[in-house]
Amino acid sequence: MSGHVVALSGGVGGAKLAHGLALSLAPGELTVIVNTGDDFRHLGLHISPDLDSVMYALADLADPLRGWGRRGETWNFMSALTALGAENWFQLGDADLAVHVERSWRLAQGWPLSRVTAHLCARLGITARVVPMSDDPVRTRVLTGEGWLDFQDYFVRRRCEPAVRDFEFAGAAAARAQPEALATLARPDLRAVVICPSNPFVSVEPILAVPGLRAAMLASGAPVIAVTPIIGGRAVKGPAAKMLAELGLDVTPAAVARRYAGLAGGFVTDASDPAPAAVPGMQYFRADTLMVTREDRVRLAQEVLRAADALRVARAADVADGDAAEDGCAGETSPM
Amino acid sequence: MSGHVVALSGGVGGAKLAHGLALSLAPGELTVIVNTGDDFRHLGLHISPDLDSVMYALADLADPLRGWGRRGETWNFMSALTALGAENWFQLGDADLAVHVERSWRLAQGWPLSRVTAHLCARLGITARVVPMSDDPVRTRVLTGEGWLDFQDYFVRRRCEPAVRDFEFAGAAAARAQPEALATLARPDLRAVVICPSNPFVSVEPILAVPGLRAAMLASGAPVIAVTPIIGGRAVKGPAAKMLAELGLDVTPAAVARRYAGLAGGFVTDASDPAPAAVPGMQYFRADTLMVTREDRVRLAQEVLRAADALRVARAADVADGDAAEDGCAGETSPM
Repeated sequence: MSGHVVALSGGVGGAKLAHGLALSLAPGELTVIVNTGDDFRHLGLHISPDLDSVMYALADLADPLRGWGRRGETWNFMSALTALGAENWFQLGDADLAVHVERSWRLAQGWPLSRVTAHLCARLGITARVVPMSDDPVRTRVLTGEGWLDFQDYFVRRRCEPAVRDFEFAGAAAARAQPEALATLARPDLRAVVICPSNPFVSVEPILAVPGLRAAMLASGAPVIAVTPIIGGRAVKGPAAKMLAELGLDVTPAAVARRYAGLAGGFVTDASDPAPAAVPGMQYFRADTLMVTREDRVRLAQEVLRAADALRVARAADVADGDAAEDGCAGETSPM
Repeated sequence: MSGHVVALSGGVGGAKLAHGLALSLAPGELTVIVNTGDDFRHLGLHISPDLDSVMYALADLADPLRGWGRRGETWNFMSALTALGAENWFQLGDADLAVHVERSWRLAQGWPLSRVTAHLCARLGITARVVPMSDDPVRTRVLTGEGWLDFQDYFVRRRCEPAVRDFEFAGAAAARAQPEALATLARPDLRAVVICPSNPFVSVEPILAVPGLRAAMLASGAPVIAVTPIIGGRAVKGPAAKMLAELGLDVTPAAVARRYAGLAGGFVTDASDPAPAAVPGMQYFRADTLMVTREDRVRLAQEVLRAADALRVARAADVADGDAAEDGCAGETSPM
């Protein structure tokens, strides 16, 4: 099956699947809508960590061992910065810094973030479209026992140590969904919307908090399918499992799946996990979701696309059976 | 003799003598007033090339072979920046960039340039005071056959190729001399003012164009002594010789000395050059002015200080002889 695919992604974990999708689709068939709730200003620079992770993954520049940043990165800027007594809690690699400086400069010239992103992607030879969820600022904040913390303060400076109680996406209510994201979701040839294995609370939900994006996904009629970021009761990377526990939720794929109830019709869990608790309207699929190698990314992407296509066929069959109004039926015919 | 010494410096050549002076004087006995006419904004960063050259020289961080920037510098930022298609005509080393980012950030926080400079110098272990000529922006512009060019455009992007016709120091008339520079020139223990072997047109004259600085030097009563940037008809570094020729001036130490007539009472020429044409009020001294090694810097600094002290003694003798009103006498008793 062909058609355009939209992926929703946060940082590194999501970026791996976005890379697998890009490798599995024809050039121009993929648009990645990226969380910008983690964006912040640091030392006067505008930093977009998730956009960078997605770009580096798609350009095959990402460091596979460190898990973030660029391969072959050097740290002479950071050493010199530290010697100057400057703020050094956020690591800025020498090559990575080029993206921050160029992005900040273009933004200062009045370019919207989406234009800067398209420009950087073109220069890096990326054929997929990478689109920030909004050109307006949305800032994720984390309510902890110590009060509200800015996301990077919580995530990097505090190393996710404070227990989380709630999140807010400051500016989201007033933010306009990035127009290309909306237009892409309205394409008649939209094959699937893939929610990448990113943190539901601080990577995916900021995207869904931008007015219009969730509605556009639902209105698209395309299957929406999510991939678990939780395997064996742990997050592959990042604080998703810790957050689930601190919020009093089960540290299971089903707990994540419930976050997407009413939006995603399909959810891919790891083959090593037991069958998760049913979620109304949600059909489960199983796959090896751990992406270590490049081949893993491609294989998972293809399985996710197959699952999305199966959802579409199942729904069409439901419609043919006159069950279209019976929302949630597909979930009860889970192949698990 | 002891007392406070003020040096006027542009970039690399001046910075070498400033370093020699710092090594020759007790901690706290040297203040370097630095040209900021070359300062510019690049990619959103505030860059102060001469302040950096002086800081790197004084902190013993300067690259001795390349002639600018930091020793052991790496260029991964520039490589990545170039790959992004960004402006790359101005070289920014990875460690050097830390100074630009930190300075720009502090300026954005509302710190005056002098405070940022003092902060950076303290972190780099520099005991001399390094003071920008003004906290207000002064921008050197160069009139060429192609019209007016911003200094860095002329100096770096055009590699000093266009012939110069004139200079202007935009903003100088409204700029306030940096208060610490003025206060230091008013110190009762001021031993000497040394005009370092910097380009007269674009390094020293921008400093002298800031209202109040020239007058403060004259009012100080301390000997003012300059060191030639021209040896054997050539500039040790930079476009000073080319500029002299393009302006129809002789490419000689005397042509530079004439720029300082009425301000400097002493002028140090290179021992390898013939005795220069007399300049009224100017006494010539000879020294090995080429600074290759660290020892060269110290030796030249000590010779310049001895010359300044000799000027003071000669002037005191003139006063004792009742010749104080006969301006220019000292020049006729040149030891050359």
